[in-house]
Amino acid sequence: MLHIALLILLRYVEETTSSICQSPPSADHPNIIVLMVDDLGYGDIQSYGHPTQEKNELDRMIAEGTRFTQAYSADSMCSPSRAGFITGRLPIRLGVTGGARVFIPQDVGGLPKHEKTMAEMLKDAGYATGMIGKWHLGINAHNSTDGSHLPSRRGFDWVGLNMPFTNTWECDTSQKFSFYGPNSTLCFLYEGDEIVQQPVDFTHITDNLVHDWKRFLRLRMLKDQQEKPFFFYFSFPHVHSAQFANARFLGSSVRGLYGDNINEMSWAVGQVLDSLVEYGIARETLVILMSDHGPHQELCLNGGSTAGLKGGKSNSFEGGFRIPFVAWQPGSVPAGRVSHEVVSSMDLYPTFRKMSMCEYEPPQLPNDGTDIWDELRGISTEKQGWLGAKRPIYFYCNTHLMAIRLGNYKVHYKTSPIFLNSTSDPNLAYWCPGGKPIDDWYVSQKCPSEHLTTHNPPLIYDLKQDPYELYPLEDNEFSEEIRRDALSFLKRHRESLVKVPQQLGNFSHSVLPCCDPPLCQCDKIKNRHTESHKELSLQPQLFVPLKKELINEILLDNNL
Amino acid sequence: MLHIALLILLRYVEETTSSICQSPPSADHPNIIVLMVDDLGYGDIQSYGHPTQEKNELDRMIAEGTRFTQAYSADSMCSPSRAGFITGRLPIRLGVTGGARVFIPQDVGGLPKHEKTMAEMLKDAGYATGMIGKWHLGINAHNSTDGSHLPSRRGFDWVGLNMPFTNTWECDTSQKFSFYGPNSTLCFLYEGDEIVQQPVDFTHITDNLVHDWKRFLRLRMLKDQQEKPFFFYFSFPHVHSAQFANARFLGSSVRGLYGDNINEMSWAVGQVLDSLVEYGIARETLVILMSDHGPHQELCLNGGSTAGLKGGKSNSFEGGFRIPFVAWQPGSVPAGRVSHEVVSSMDLYPTFRKMSMCEYEPPQLPNDGTDIWDELRGISTEKQGWLGAKRPIYFYCNTHLMAIRLGNYKVHYKTSPIFLNSTSDPNLAYWCPGGKPIDDWYVSQKCPSEHLTTHNPPLIYDLKQDPYELYPLEDNEFSEEIRRDALSFLKRHRESLVKVPQQLGNFSHSVLPCCDPPLCQCDKIKNRHTESHKELSLQPQLFVPLKKELINEILLDNNL
Repeated sequence: MLHIALLILLRYVEETTSSICQSPPSADHPNIIVLMVDDLGYGDIQSYGHPTQEKNELDRMIAEGTRFTQAYSADSMCSPSRAGFITGRLPIRLGVTGGARVFIPQDVGGLPKHEKTMAEMLKDAGYATGMIGKWHLGINAHNSTDGSHLPSRRGFDWVGLNMPFTNTWECDTSQKFSFYGPNSTLCFLYEGDEIVQQPVDFTHITDNLVHDWKRFLRLRMLKDQQEKPFFFYFSFPHVHSAQFANARFLGSSVRGLYGDNINEMSWAVGQVLDSLVEYGIARETLVILMSDHGPHQELCLNGGSTAGLKGGKSNSFEGGFRIPFVAWQPGSVPAGRVSHEVVSSMDLYPTFRKMSMCEYEPPQLPNDGTDIWDELRGISTEKQGWLGAKRPIYFYCNTHLMAIRLGNYKVHYKTSPIFLNSTSDPNLAYWCPGGKPIDDWYVSQKCPSEHLTTHNPPLIYDLKQDPYELYPLEDNEFSEEIRRDALSFLKRHRESLVKVPQQLGNFSHSVLPCCDPPLCQCDKIKNRHTESHKELSLQPQLFVPLKKELINEILLDNNL
Repeated sequence: MLHIALLILLRYVEETTSSICQSPPSADHPNIIVLMVDDLGYGDIQSYGHPTQEKNELDRMIAEGTRFTQAYSADSMCSPSRAGFITGRLPIRLGVTGGARVFIPQDVGGLPKHEKTMAEMLKDAGYATGMIGKWHLGINAHNSTDGSHLPSRRGFDWVGLNMPFTNTWECDTSQKFSFYGPNSTLCFLYEGDEIVQQPVDFTHITDNLVHDWKRFLRLRMLKDQQEKPFFFYFSFPHVHSAQFANARFLGSSVRGLYGDNINEMSWAVGQVLDSLVEYGIARETLVILMSDHGPHQELCLNGGSTAGLKGGKSNSFEGGFRIPFVAWQPGSVPAGRVSHEVVSSMDLYPTFRKMSMCEYEPPQLPNDGTDIWDELRGISTEKQGWLGAKRPIYFYCNTHLMAIRLGNYKVHYKTSPIFLNSTSDPNLAYWCPGGKPIDDWYVSQKCPSEHLTTHNPPLIYDLKQDPYELYPLEDNEFSEEIRRDALSFLKRHRESLVKVPQQLGNFSHSVLPCCDPPLCQCDKIKNRHTESHKELSLQPQLFVPLKKELINEILLDNNL
């Protein structure tokens, strides 16, 4: 507990010295939007090499922005990855470890309060903050309604429709995959801090989320966009199972439901970009799109593609951690650029911190990211590969340090199996025609020691030559040097770690969200989509919109 | 022999009725350039999803043209694939089967004379024809100098530097991979019908090939471009082993020598495109770039990437047959388009035939391609997927019919192993750090029956949902219907086959090429690169060049 007290003190010091400069949004002090996609694989988008996925708004965003080929998530499972992203600190520092490796509804823990979220940090710096969509960083601590860990308590002043817990296939309403219909205990939709639908119905959720984004944006335009920028976190329920799509998108993809999901999510991304252009604030808004980690390969045809990278969600091979990552800001982020620099989702915290503060003060707590603002804008003068050499990527599975990437080399100390056990869940026959293969993918969700292989000497892959992690380097002087370098980084890393309580796995059934006990069934938004469609049109007359031609001109100017 | 006599007769009939219309090149009756890359994998280019390959001139060609995601080679080994491409007919019809599955220098066979090559067909239609680079369709039939099967005898009036046999790693001059230095018997360079270098030295070969292309182009511009179009076949020795690169490209890629190869080849591609723009004939020139089949995966880090497609060179999974395929013709082929239509390298024969003739006459011999001119130009009015439904893709391994793709479905009757035996070649340690894996890739070069697995019922994959061939369809009514459809195509296909003599595997040591018996060593082009560099600059004043701005405008107009 002494540690926690110390951390709280440190944070207090940090907070009081943060200077609020409240300047209006500009290209250098922009609005920030993070579009977080769930379980999207590295190879799921046409521009990232998928052979059949339809060209969609993500490809448009990539053509108008910069895509990264060496971007990493903070973890290969949802809760720790999102915890890392939103604090800029590895999940091991936050205690987002243990339990089921993700927050489940009966968890009493959440992202620790003494950690400062990106939203809290940006709010301190004078940003208006908002979020919609998947949260997955804790719900209640004491009872079924206290909402201690919800986004509204973590720096988001405006919270629309949100899912504190992820959609799972127990939430499927079609009875195709979940024979008994959706499980209310697992499937609920919030608006702010209140449950508005239990079980959640996905049919119109994307329309409603887009509507919420437009509500937030209109509010900003009317109220404070001329004085201060905003930060908006749009966290998609797509493309996690249960997959779903509105009738407009069902059958839109040759890939089936999984591709339909991608197309629906992509439509929403296009809506966000379009609304920025229509309001004339695109040049003052940085948009980042990324996945929270690799694809859920157990779902076979309904899990995504890694484009040949090894493994997927839950393990420490590239397929688990490497993510699609796109930056967009017309006039600042170059159009059509591809960056091979190593970036991490945890780099966004220090990057946003730097761009948001008038006088930069580095964060006081050990931070696992680094400022990539120049790299996003393609104006870095450092030599190629500098980010990967400066800031290693650590690959954890729960509390196990599995691997480290340093420059082009990845050193695996431990690996978990990719193929292991056979599951006999009859639902899987739908995902894997012909039945699930005997050697199915293994979700090493909890990563128990007895499932891990320790490598001595550690395996080393040159990820530039061998991104697929097929051919470990020979054991010689050169590889020994890489191991030594990695060890010295690792030593410092370990010294920087402080023992913290595990947040996952402390269960209490009394905290299970329930809107209408004991049935736990309600629907307060049933007809909203009909109304929301009426409201979906923006009121661009509020501001003089930037002409589309001008935007095109800006985009072309930046086509490097 | 009766069959052959009949075929010859048929061809005679066909030839005499071909009408020469000799009209000058135009957008609809364009010059044609085929850039054939050797062993380039589906996933080797940044625009096809490679995570680390540098952006290069192929990406530029793709941005200015149309890339195909469902393009197939005629075979998964060099000689049969090239034989199929150049005749529009499957290798099984040509007898390019047997032996080592490719022509080796002691083979007395070659592409049968009664088959009409693309060059012969286009020459008949009034085109000027030329070729440089790798041939691999036979050399001598009777002695070491008769050159019966060389490109000059197969319709190419202008033949520059060429390699009748492929480069192999026995041709490596660095002594890194071939301890005793290059093997003269396997490694020779021709100019027209004459050996000019034995063993071949690759250091300046790309410069010299580009120089030859420019010589050919200048000749055309001076002599006959205003009267008739040309057909030029630029067949790269890249990226087959022995890999090599000029000093300018060594170290240019983070992927190592393999990536250096891609960058050098790509530079040459850029030179070709640039020279067309400079001479102002880009709008009247169709350029096709493709690979001859999948990557040579046995070479590990020096074999290419399939971007996750199964298998590679030599087998009948997608990794063996699916190829990068790009079309470029400013003003006609849309810029930045991605086509998911199923196309085959054998489609080019009927396509070129149609665009070259004033009055179209279909070929008389059974043909395995179909006209894709509208698809190349993005003006097809057919519904998506029509090409794949109309013209199946047949996957042979030697004389074994392994699989068929019909629409989105691929039916595997037989498969060859991807992993099988362990090779102990010490050279492989360089390609595969840590030594070649025990379960190394298996080149089913000869495809002996005892190595094949027969599937009953045949395996079916939905390639739109499952391009990686991981999850065969369940055995039910639906899959039964697909099998029935495939069988009916197969029946007609088999009925169209005529028994022909095998061209491969008839060996005689007396036909081995030798420039200076008995040593077989010579170098008549040693200093050519120095001279050729002087000549490399074009003389664009011969024609009024199309302004670069205009080209850009055309390209943008076409950006769909």
